[in-house]
Amino acid sequence: MKLLRVGTAGAERPALLDADGVLRDLSGVVADIDGTLLADDAALARVRAAADAGELPALEAAGVRIGPPLGRIGKVVCIGLNYHDHARETGAEPPAEPVVFLKAADTVIGPNDTVLVPRGSVKTDWEVELAVVIGRTARYLDSAADALAHVAGYAVAHDVSEREFQIERGGTWDKGKNCETFNPLGPWLVTADEVRDPQDLALRLWVNGELKQDGTTAEQIFPVGEVVRYVSHFMTLYPGDVINTGTPAGVAMGHPDPKPYLRAGDVVELEITGLGRQRQQLGRA
Amino acid sequence: MKLLRVGTAGAERPALLDADGVLRDLSGVVADIDGTLLADDAALARVRAAADAGELPALEAAGVRIGPPLGRIGKVVCIGLNYHDHARETGAEPPAEPVVFLKAADTVIGPNDTVLVPRGSVKTDWEVELAVVIGRTARYLDSAADALAHVAGYAVAHDVSEREFQIERGGTWDKGKNCETFNPLGPWLVTADEVRDPQDLALRLWVNGELKQDGTTAEQIFPVGEVVRYVSHFMTLYPGDVINTGTPAGVAMGHPDPKPYLRAGDVVELEITGLGRQRQQLGRA
Repeated sequence: MKLLRVGTAGAERPALLDADGVLRDLSGVVADIDGTLLADDAALARVRAAADAGELPALEAAGVRIGPPLGRIGKVVCIGLNYHDHARETGAEPPAEPVVFLKAADTVIGPNDTVLVPRGSVKTDWEVELAVVIGRTARYLDSAADALAHVAGYAVAHDVSEREFQIERGGTWDKGKNCETFNPLGPWLVTADEVRDPQDLALRLWVNGELKQDGTTAEQIFPVGEVVRYVSHFMTLYPGDVINTGTPAGVAMGHPDPKPYLRAGDVVELEITGLGRQRQQLGRA
Repeated sequence: MKLLRVGTAGAERPALLDADGVLRDLSGVVADIDGTLLADDAALARVRAAADAGELPALEAAGVRIGPPLGRIGKVVCIGLNYHDHARETGAEPPAEPVVFLKAADTVIGPNDTVLVPRGSVKTDWEVELAVVIGRTARYLDSAADALAHVAGYAVAHDVSEREFQIERGGTWDKGKNCETFNPLGPWLVTADEVRDPQDLALRLWVNGELKQDGTTAEQIFPVGEVVRYVSHFMTLYPGDVINTGTPAGVAMGHPDPKPYLRAGDVVELEITGLGRQRQQLGRA
């Protein structure tokens, strides 16, 4: 299923994009798309049955804002340097174990909302990423295969990053990862049953129409199951948590000088096979 | 006011500790102690008026669990190496600007709940900290004085830390800061009007009855107002967000070898002037 949330920010209603591409209203079936729903097999089955039976009312899609496909996100865990090609472009050795950092859930916005260049920023960068949405509490998991069974679905994430704040201002990466609007998510949460192989997805990102990232999750150093298993030994993952699993090569930081960092007015588009497409115009904070 | 939340985990009710030390039920006046309340001057005034008028029913305190004094916490921002004496003991230079990292809100537990030593941990450490609770949205603030006006109150926080996970496992500090139960908070949220000078508070921590940390917020490299101002330039702070402002000297990592890291069965007690006292027994994850 392709689950999504539509409407004004903070007041989105749950919806579903059916096999014919018609937007369907889910608000008569579930209260929201969130961790509570994803952990509830019976509720998910009701959604599926209603969709299959053609019982869901169509929604007018024209002009409707798409919000993040997940409400009440607990935490956003991020994996750094998780693509062989991206590690090469940054000059870093491939890490021996996953690099983990956090993004606050309040950075999450809809897939086509405006991304704000922070005040004083000269190094705002892009990162297309496969986001994993947790559906079952994951704690000290033994195997990558078991870990995959804790994944409710997948989405496109944009892990916007300010490189000066991240790297040159002291302390940890978090300082350059948590500016407001720095995590567009969606358009859809695609349930795991519809993603045949999370390690065979193409990720692409364009800036002002020019292709900048053209990667595949086959290049991930730590695949999705291993990431979830690994993280579960350091923190408990709850339904409605999100993991951004890293970005492939092609970020601004990896370009020769002068590096083409983002400015207000730029347009970033990104997509992942089967997970949909985002488009953000950059603004000023 | 001393605001708190009592009852079983996840189902706490709002309460107030009055000037006579009597626990009073607030559930007839407000739904919860959370960011929504802290941002609502009229609701806070109603609480104060009800308390002053002696209208709040007493609650039986014996045997009642105290939860974290704040519900629906958005994010927990932490400041590292923020005390001159702690920077010295870790061998680090005092940072030129605040070191910032994040803790997930799901690590927050009540002040006397069990803290779990993670599986595989041999370096679980303690850190008594002054927690700042945000009451008004703080974004690109100009001055430390203005920043202090965005603080709703203060509380005791225990920033439990796994030093191997934090420092020796690659990546950022977050890996050793986000294990489940790693952020006891409370017992009270003391409103800012009752904290005369946040830079003149004594912090103490004992392990199995032995005094380990005996510091003062006068040693903070970046005082509370400056911390809030600074952080507001990298991320937006919302009502109900928490900032742990760093720990003074005396952590296990600062001891000579063999360092006295925490084990299951140990008891940690911590207190800050006027903000109350915590007591945790360590267990196994």
